[in-house]
Amino acid sequence: MPQTRLDTARILDARQVIDPVFLGSPLYRCEALEPALGCAVSIKLETANPVRSFKARGTELVASLLAGRGEPRAVCASAGNLGQALAWSGRGRGLDVTVVASRFATVAKLERIRALGARLELVDGDHEAARERAAEIARCDGIRLVEDSLDIETCEGAATIGLELVESATSFDTVLIALGGGALATGVGHVLKERAPEVEVVCVQPLGAPAMTHSWHGRRVVSTDSAETIADGVAGRHPVPAVLDDLLLVADDAVLVREASIVAGMRMLLDHAGLVVEPSAALGVAAVLEDRDRFAGRHVVTIVCGSNVDPGAYHRWVGTAADRTA
Amino acid sequence: MPQTRLDTARILDARQVIDPVFLGSPLYRCEALEPALGCAVSIKLETANPVRSFKARGTELVASLLAGRGEPRAVCASAGNLGQALAWSGRGRGLDVTVVASRFATVAKLERIRALGARLELVDGDHEAARERAAEIARCDGIRLVEDSLDIETCEGAATIGLELVESATSFDTVLIALGGGALATGVGHVLKERAPEVEVVCVQPLGAPAMTHSWHGRRVVSTDSAETIADGVAGRHPVPAVLDDLLLVADDAVLVREASIVAGMRMLLDHAGLVVEPSAALGVAAVLEDRDRFAGRHVVTIVCGSNVDPGAYHRWVGTAADRTA
Repeated sequence: MPQTRLDTARILDARQVIDPVFLGSPLYRCEALEPALGCAVSIKLETANPVRSFKARGTELVASLLAGRGEPRAVCASAGNLGQALAWSGRGRGLDVTVVASRFATVAKLERIRALGARLELVDGDHEAARERAAEIARCDGIRLVEDSLDIETCEGAATIGLELVESATSFDTVLIALGGGALATGVGHVLKERAPEVEVVCVQPLGAPAMTHSWHGRRVVSTDSAETIADGVAGRHPVPAVLDDLLLVADDAVLVREASIVAGMRMLLDHAGLVVEPSAALGVAAVLEDRDRFAGRHVVTIVCGSNVDPGAYHRWVGTAADRTA
Repeated sequence: MPQTRLDTARILDARQVIDPVFLGSPLYRCEALEPALGCAVSIKLETANPVRSFKARGTELVASLLAGRGEPRAVCASAGNLGQALAWSGRGRGLDVTVVASRFATVAKLERIRALGARLELVDGDHEAARERAAEIARCDGIRLVEDSLDIETCEGAATIGLELVESATSFDTVLIALGGGALATGVGHVLKERAPEVEVVCVQPLGAPAMTHSWHGRRVVSTDSAETIADGVAGRHPVPAVLDDLLLVADDAVLVREASIVAGMRMLLDHAGLVVEPSAALGVAAVLEDRDRFAGRHVVTIVCGSNVDPGAYHRWVGTAADRTA
């Protein structure tokens, strides 16, 4: 049993707190993807909910905790999905939510954060600049800073996906997990290593934003100077030490994939699975595309973790079927 | 309680027979659609499963019945979704499945039917020609003809969606249901009228394939000479009398929508909900677009019933975000 910061009893309890609309997401074989990928592929679909990503599993826990304590305010830094989820969870519980984001964040995500009633503050610079500003607001105003991956609720919320995987009737060999700050990977990984240790946990990160992957391989925190990827949801530069410690206990591997493979993965999910996904959600397919031999004949589950994309950017990346057949 | 051919006890039992991968599909508010539609909108998503449509809820019942009786063969006519679903359900139970389809059917659907191991026979002419040929095969070979909407299993399978709607914590005013042969409408309508009679059941059909809608308004079977619509899933011309009788008991209204509205609905579901859908699945949104006043301020559920589209055709219909903002 992995001695992470996470606790399986709390993860089980979390399902009583999280709005059921975020639980029990679809898990299904997608045979149309298989000829091209050379392995059996199941999709765990985290986009068919009010915020179109898995993040609300965690923010439901955070918001519930705050509301229970009578703390009416929270702030977070977000590339968009955490902010949208915290706004949704906070609104339902009467919380006053501030989201700090890079002004280069995905427009569709920023619009949804505003529409959900949160205060949105934009900063110049990247996600790390937003993290600094959010921390400053929390310090000055004395309000709760919600830190993705560091805060145990964000990991244990994501871990409920792991419970759904191990409880399913499907048996599989490998779970491919998008790696950014590490909440999803440590959450799902914790449950898998405890309940189904034979299942391989493979984390996938963009080559252009490799901080946590380098850290996992080096067994020590490695920061990077930049994060250059279209996968905004996983574009951090400074891994959190406690999260790395957990990741070292639960991940079997961490791999990096090229931007072109992420785009190819998005295209395949569109053409063969009928799914519009954001770049982070295509990392698993990208990993198979880059190393078919490794996964040949195995049964992989890929967690399709979000679908918040700007339609214009999506089109530029993926093109059209007409472009591809031309 | 509506005296249809359907039986609620059997529908409840059906959930023990249908593979769980097809049950408990997502039901969620999609606020991003609401400003444009002027009403609260929830989506019941029937595309996140191995056959990308609701049809397997019915074919699971049919295939299970046949397997239980030791009948090893079945044939159906299909525009694609029923065939794909019957192929999937039959394969899992060792049945020999033949699907007859128009050679003008959606290529993506035909490819999936073949990939699932069914025998595919193409006929010239439209879906009604396929129905005739399937009946002939059944007669000559003495095998079970699976008739969509006429066969009670196809209706009661679809009706399990109705159970999920009435069991949800969400309350809503109207359910918008794609109308073709009537299995989905009579199935869901039966459960709603029995368990939540205050909820309005509105069927939506393309103006170019209006046979069942004309029949419902005229209270007698009205056939049409042609069916001209991109919504291949609902393009029948000869309503089945027994299905019309049921529909008269459970539908509050049946409306027709233009092709341009169906396309606009597909675009909205792509841009605001991140969903690729086939034309039939956009009928509900199309109905709201054509009569915003009617639905203003109400909470509608639209059943997104399928996502099997040819990527090329989809692109021709929907265009790109770049086209739309240009």
